[in-house]
Amino acid sequence: MTVTVGFVGLGNMGLPMACNLAAAGFKIRGFDVVASARDALSKIEGAEAVHELRDVAVGAAVVITMLPDSPQVLAVLSGPDGLIAYSEPGTLLVDMSTISPQVAKQVAADAESHGLSMLDAPVSGGVIGAEKGTLSIMVGGADADLVKARPILEAMGGNIVHCGPTSMGQTFKLCNQICCAGNILALSEAFALCRSQGGDLSKLRDAMSGGSAGSWMLNNVGPQMISGNDKGGFTIDLQLKDLRLVLETAMASHVALPGTALAAQLYQSELAHGGSRNANYALHRVIDRLANQPVTG
Amino acid sequence: MTVTVGFVGLGNMGLPMACNLAAAGFKIRGFDVVASARDALSKIEGAEAVHELRDVAVGAAVVITMLPDSPQVLAVLSGPDGLIAYSEPGTLLVDMSTISPQVAKQVAADAESHGLSMLDAPVSGGVIGAEKGTLSIMVGGADADLVKARPILEAMGGNIVHCGPTSMGQTFKLCNQICCAGNILALSEAFALCRSQGGDLSKLRDAMSGGSAGSWMLNNVGPQMISGNDKGGFTIDLQLKDLRLVLETAMASHVALPGTALAAQLYQSELAHGGSRNANYALHRVIDRLANQPVTG
Amino acid sequence: MTVTVGFVGLGNMGLPMACNLAAAGFKIRGFDVVASARDALSKIEGAEAVHELRDVAVGAAVVITMLPDSPQVLAVLSGPDGLIAYSEPGTLLVDMSTISPQVAKQVAADAESHGLSMLDAPVSGGVIGAEKGTLSIMVGGADADLVKARPILEAMGGNIVHCGPTSMGQTFKLCNQICCAGNILALSEAFALCRSQGGDLSKLRDAMSGGSAGSWMLNNVGPQMISGNDKGGFTIDLQLKDLRLVLETAMASHVALPGTALAAQLYQSELAHGGSRNANYALHRVIDRLANQPVTG
Amino acid sequence: MTVTVGFVGLGNMGLPMACNLAAAGFKIRGFDVVASARDALSKIEGAEAVHELRDVAVGAAVVITMLPDSPQVLAVLSGPDGLIAYSEPGTLLVDMSTISPQVAKQVAADAESHGLSMLDAPVSGGVIGAEKGTLSIMVGGADADLVKARPILEAMGGNIVHCGPTSMGQTFKLCNQICCAGNILALSEAFALCRSQGGDLSKLRDAMSGGSAGSWMLNNVGPQMISGNDKGGFTIDLQLKDLRLVLETAMASHVALPGTALAAQLYQSELAHGGSRNANYALHRVIDRLANQPVTG
Repeated sequence: MTVTVGFVGLGNMGLPMACNLAAAGFKIRGFDVVASARDALSKIEGAEAVHELRDVAVGAAVVITMLPDSPQVLAVLSGPDGLIAYSEPGTLLVDMSTISPQVAKQVAADAESHGLSMLDAPVSGGVIGAEKGTLSIMVGGADADLVKARPILEAMGGNIVHCGPTSMGQTFKLCNQICCAGNILALSEAFALCRSQGGDLSKLRDAMSGGSAGSWMLNNVGPQMISGNDKGGFTIDLQLKDLRLVLETAMASHVALPGTALAAQLYQSELAHGGSRNANYALHRVIDRLANQPVTG
Repeated sequence: MTVTVGFVGLGNMGLPMACNLAAAGFKIRGFDVVASARDALSKIEGAEAVHELRDVAVGAAVVITMLPDSPQVLAVLSGPDGLIAYSEPGTLLVDMSTISPQVAKQVAADAESHGLSMLDAPVSGGVIGAEKGTLSIMVGGADADLVKARPILEAMGGNIVHCGPTSMGQTFKLCNQICCAGNILALSEAFALCRSQGGDLSKLRDAMSGGSAGSWMLNNVGPQMISGNDKGGFTIDLQLKDLRLVLETAMASHVALPGTALAAQLYQSELAHGGSRNANYALHRVIDRLANQPVTG
Repeated sequence: MTVTVGFVGLGNMGLPMACNLAAAGFKIRGFDVVASARDALSKIEGAEAVHELRDVAVGAAVVITMLPDSPQVLAVLSGPDGLIAYSEPGTLLVDMSTISPQVAKQVAADAESHGLSMLDAPVSGGVIGAEKGTLSIMVGGADADLVKARPILEAMGGNIVHCGPTSMGQTFKLCNQICCAGNILALSEAFALCRSQGGDLSKLRDAMSGGSAGSWMLNNVGPQMISGNDKGGFTIDLQLKDLRLVLETAMASHVALPGTALAAQLYQSELAHGGSRNANYALHRVIDRLANQPVTG
Repeated sequence: MTVTVGFVGLGNMGLPMACNLAAAGFKIRGFDVVASARDALSKIEGAEAVHELRDVAVGAAVVITMLPDSPQVLAVLSGPDGLIAYSEPGTLLVDMSTISPQVAKQVAADAESHGLSMLDAPVSGGVIGAEKGTLSIMVGGADADLVKARPILEAMGGNIVHCGPTSMGQTFKLCNQICCAGNILALSEAFALCRSQGGDLSKLRDAMSGGSAGSWMLNNVGPQMISGNDKGGFTIDLQLKDLRLVLETAMASHVALPGTALAAQLYQSELAHGGSRNANYALHRVIDRLANQPVTG
């Protein structure tokens, strides 16, 4: 029997994820506040776009949300008009947005009080990962719920990690973003020093790759950082949104993250210089600008 | 015909490097200011310890220096009593210490004015790499000199990169250290946030490994950071020495490295708490102390 | 004729402010969600406590709000049950809370659309200034509204500055808090270095006072920093709330504030060590803890 | 009887200081490595320029040094050709340069071993203070030596503070510079936020002056920061030299100074943008550049 999956949030990430689900044989009932996104979904075989949020949950065993931030997740799931109030008991909610762990706990508690289960399952891998179905998915929640969700998650991602109980998926995602930003900042500073000495950055990349200075960022975005090809990918706007969640979570727990806070401030400078749509590795532009040197080798 | 190699500096790194050279068939004439280090060398087949610095260069085609810092390199090589004044024209000097690029340039110019060639060839890989002969060696200098030195370097290391002209080996080494410190700081902050939320750090390591947050540090010292096994390896003392070289070089070139400067300050706190002999990844102790939480999960 | 002033928020700051207004001859109609705060007001001659928020505005020419943060100001003033909906046209709203400039603009626009005027008028000077009626008041809004409000403000404060149009009072307050935190951080570092060299901090304070290193903080809280008398005054909890507003406002405007962000992270460490009720100058404890040295000279 | 004072270092600071001594009736024997500086001194009534360093000490009860940095002080005073070797026992050395406390201790010990006394006596107040004889002088050393030196110091400065034993004058000077840099950084960030909101910086300065955000910097260089009049005064070059001494001293004592280290890195950016001769308060240019906004209101 075909399983119906509700899907809310059909943006750059959500739409290809929903398409992969449809391609894997799930019946999709999708919704987005943007009409063109609904239209795009409705053209997909096996997918149907509904015009009211509440219709997403009708007949759905699982409802997925893929939304920009905590306020949207709260609005869509909780409150008098939220899906939690309209879903059948037993429905499994899977929030794949990146939001704060605190809000993830709050919504999961709300769901539980209505007889629903919930997983937090934020992803990494970007638009390309969403399209190729190779996302890494970090899951927080009960074992049994993950067992139920796994076939669905496997249609969207290649690396599914059960991080711990409710909200731990979000915590792991935030920790992941700390390392991304910090490793980019370190690379930006290393490259800036090398440029200032007249060094060949491609040789530096080769020399550092594989050794103790090595990182995914060095291997995968190092070449773009060197050439100054800073467009696309995971944008600074999104990186800053995630760092804001990191810093709010840390503040609530009285954890000082001086390196992450510094990276966030420097990222803001790139926004001021018009780089909000540049990739997160474009942080090197801020460091090179401080050194008053061109950003390409 | 056996090639004679002079070797100055028989410490934790230099002694096993000299041993590997002897094992590879080179005749070693070694010197160290510490008598016990000379004694240790003299017990090695194919190696001879001399009692005066100037004797190191006698009959040597190549003289290697492996010393703590710039002042020692200057003292051993330059000046009225330095090896540059005592070496035969045509001798190739190879300084494998980590020193400032500025001093590397200065000593190389001094050597050249005496008819000698010089390579800067700092290493990474630590004591274990020195013992196993698997050091990464970053070389600055002329092609022809590297051709001459390569058989010798290959007896000590597995990955020999020609970084560029004189001093560029040192520059690459410093860039490498920026990434090491920055990646450790990022990891320390990610782990501290995860601890504060009650997360399982080993699961976090698995989840981040291979993805965009991945790094050599995560893979190779992450487990020790998690268990709080902070002894040994590349110590904070040495890390701070290298960061000082980084920051001095950056200051001379007017390059702002706010992340590296922050990491250096935080490292100093671990010294204040008695951790000078802890490994460089023990920076997590400073971040955990700020958060007032235990350093093991 | 006696002027009636509505007053919402009768906490540590609001209650003495309302008392000073009553003592100056204004008739006070006050409200707080906490019953004991209402009771305290009702014992003051010339003041009356009302039991419903909406009753505050009855017959009031001016309504003052003195609330913890932006959400409370939004809840009390805007929305279907807010005072803006219930106040007579022509009423002047004066928000003396410290909130974000963005929210100040939003509420002022809401007020204007209902035919009401509004001033933002955050204060500095703390509980002592509130009790003595010597607060500094930073006012944003129209000249005519300030003319109308001035007699009321003068009953609460000694230094009333018209900063500019709507929200500029909040902006000035935030700028003020940047300097407070930054000057405290600088002092904490200077004192920590002096302690580490065995210096006499009281002599240092005298030597720096009046010269280029001088500041209000040095003169007024320096002695407490030296003696480690860190209780009371403007607490770290409140300082961090204000720095959060600073950093959110800066992020929205793409202004990088690396020093302020660093101070905020370090303040969080003092929370982790149980110091949330310590005074804002207790930041020196974090710096001394990093240096592993006792906090008193 | 006229007291003879030797004076080494006749630069922007030293020459007017020597002139003030001559005007007060002391007989000056001065030396500088720069011939034009010696010529300038020789035109002053009561002053004589000598052509060899060693002649400075002849017949001098007190010898003053006013030199750029630690290496020059070491070279002039210590070593085989230094003044310590050539001065009569009983001569009092007064080093008014800003150098590291460690070097101050080392030179004072050297002097003592030759039967000489020494005071460290760095100044603040800049070229204007040197010319007007209103320098603040921070003195480290023995009481009896300060008693002897006081009449001489009073001819150069208006505020003479006995900070403690040998090297404590230097320590106090460095602490002073921490506060100067930190207060400037805080002001730069406050002004940048105000600019971004369209605020009137002169009004902000007035509003903050006298309150908890107040500082000497706000009062005395705030107007220049606002107008962008960044030339002259205590230059960034000199500020960075002092911050380097601060950070080296802190590192040697394992004191983490994250705020000062951040300020130093940001200052370097202004050097990269050609501002080495700008005043230390020109740090605001770096903050405004990060925010991509013009530096004048």
